[in-house]
Amino acid sequence: MSTTGQVITCKAAVCWAAGEELKIEEIEVAPPGAHEVRVKILYTGICHTDEYTRSGKDPEGVFPVVLGHEGGGIVESVGEGVTNVKPGDHVIPLYTAVRATQGQGLMPDSTSRFKCKGQSLFHFMGTSTFSQYTVVADVSIVAVNETAPLQRVCLLGCGITTAWGAVAKLPAPGVKDSTVAVFGCGAIGLGVIETARTHGASRIIAVDTNPNKESWAKKFGAQEFVNPAQLGDKRIQDYLIEITDGGLDFTFDCTGNVNVMRAALEACHKGWGVSSIIGVAPAGHEISTRPFQLVTGRVWRGVAFGGVKGRTEIPGLVDEYLAGKIKIDEYVTHSRKFEEINEGFHDMHAGDCIRCVVDMTTI
Amino acid sequence: MSTTGQVITCKAAVCWAAGEELKIEEIEVAPPGAHEVRVKILYTGICHTDEYTRSGKDPEGVFPVVLGHEGGGIVESVGEGVTNVKPGDHVIPLYTAVRATQGQGLMPDSTSRFKCKGQSLFHFMGTSTFSQYTVVADVSIVAVNETAPLQRVCLLGCGITTAWGAVAKLPAPGVKDSTVAVFGCGAIGLGVIETARTHGASRIIAVDTNPNKESWAKKFGAQEFVNPAQLGDKRIQDYLIEITDGGLDFTFDCTGNVNVMRAALEACHKGWGVSSIIGVAPAGHEISTRPFQLVTGRVWRGVAFGGVKGRTEIPGLVDEYLAGKIKIDEYVTHSRKFEEINEGFHDMHAGDCIRCVVDMTTI
Repeated sequence: MSTTGQVITCKAAVCWAAGEELKIEEIEVAPPGAHEVRVKILYTGICHTDEYTRSGKDPEGVFPVVLGHEGGGIVESVGEGVTNVKPGDHVIPLYTAVRATQGQGLMPDSTSRFKCKGQSLFHFMGTSTFSQYTVVADVSIVAVNETAPLQRVCLLGCGITTAWGAVAKLPAPGVKDSTVAVFGCGAIGLGVIETARTHGASRIIAVDTNPNKESWAKKFGAQEFVNPAQLGDKRIQDYLIEITDGGLDFTFDCTGNVNVMRAALEACHKGWGVSSIIGVAPAGHEISTRPFQLVTGRVWRGVAFGGVKGRTEIPGLVDEYLAGKIKIDEYVTHSRKFEEINEGFHDMHAGDCIRCVVDMTTI
Repeated sequence: MSTTGQVITCKAAVCWAAGEELKIEEIEVAPPGAHEVRVKILYTGICHTDEYTRSGKDPEGVFPVVLGHEGGGIVESVGEGVTNVKPGDHVIPLYTAVRATQGQGLMPDSTSRFKCKGQSLFHFMGTSTFSQYTVVADVSIVAVNETAPLQRVCLLGCGITTAWGAVAKLPAPGVKDSTVAVFGCGAIGLGVIETARTHGASRIIAVDTNPNKESWAKKFGAQEFVNPAQLGDKRIQDYLIEITDGGLDFTFDCTGNVNVMRAALEACHKGWGVSSIIGVAPAGHEISTRPFQLVTGRVWRGVAFGGVKGRTEIPGLVDEYLAGKIKIDEYVTHSRKFEEINEGFHDMHAGDCIRCVVDMTTI
């Protein structure tokens, strides 16, 4: 029996209020409007941005909400005027088609497609992948090779793509034959390390205060690992400048900590060093440095989603994964059933978790 | 009678202590050592960096010192091993051959060539152009077309070249067909405006709190002038974002004020805006912003001497000036005799002064 044009009742993990754990609820998902797509989500990653909003630290968070933005699924039905995907397509939702309504937790027409116990639920980042069915704008979705396992390529919806783009999209010649330091060895940091390696960096130094990350960093391609907590009174930037005879060609902040962002900039070589901010800092936190750091020839840049154009570039990344050219499997340290999604959030805080993928089909 | 190999006695403006006015003194200038050049300085500009050190605000300032770094002169004699210039060459001293000794006010062999009343005087920026004769390292000097008037091209030793490079050396396609805002309409700001115009910027907005700068900015190529002091409660960055429908492609800070640097960054368009810091901030002052400003796709960079390689590029700039392609004459609002050099410093603080050139031959 076709569900096209019908309200679908399914399970979703609802966050009713800031700081609360998610609650699996039965929700109603309205059919897609014009230029909208309804997707059956099969798998979703859990990312720090979901936790940031769940925790209540995000000043723009709105509740109750269906979080999640790193998903993989299959198109169930499409609204009027949709031409880029069709029912049955394997898809990855994209959160970067920035519109004012997305930030307000609503579809482009300023309404919601989710209802629970008679109450409207907010969308999140235009994706809301913590629901068995979600509705997204047609500009916020891309079809990918359907032979690719969605429990893996769902991670291209955020972290791995962000890391890849932050390195791969640097102006030519990029990191080739260059020295690189990567601050923070979570999924993003490891992705930056791997991409630096595949793009020909001559020396990759990983930096993390968690000593367990050393083996991870080296597995992904770092030659050296530095633990700033073991440097005594020496600042990490001074230590790195010392061991690289003047500083790094490229540094990447993958921590979201503004003090680390400053250290990453200042560890760059004067004259040409480029420091990229990938991590998202808590609201109200600011980065600072002496302008002299820039005037002596360093560049401070940031990237959102790695500067990747999701609708044109993600299909290619999926193909590269299938061809064994980019890693995804290696990031998945934890798998959870949908009913264990809150445990998945706890996994993230454990030092041994790189990425946790949730199977949305277990209920 | 040749002075080669002899100590030369001449006049110099000596700053005996932080915060004191300069004093014209008779000094002794030793002959150039190996890889050194002695230059008869005919003209020198006065720049804010000279005043910064004179005033005592520069924590690295050393006294007594011969200041000055924007000079033009003629080679008097050269030391052993000098091949890039010869006696009689018209030259511009360069302060960018950075070495540890230069920052300490000494020649590369850690000694001084200046003596006054039996006391050694410090060099400044490797140039010390406030003396009728100075000694510089051979890497710190460039010969230029001798038909060029030194009382004009001396300004290529700092300000005008810095401004030119900050725009001309942006990665291609640079400011062509782009929108530009320039904060601060002193010599550097005007140079940025002019270079943006000659490089095809589509819209140039000048920003200054001094209303008298409007006519200057427009003379050099700005189409619009905004006085932040007249915006009431509105922040300059918000105003600029409003009138440019999202922000500028390029902004330039030419003020040295860290709050203005922040405004200049935040006035950039997200996704691609590039903000350049050209001004030098007071010691201890720091720039800050929310990392979100960078993560949404802005770049914060700085430039020293415009990123220009003085020894290879300044001769070309002199030729462009002679061909009428870059302005220099228009910057010179004040001329002073050597004995009036302190008045030249006062001129700089007056709102109507762009550049003051001192004639070193009047005593």
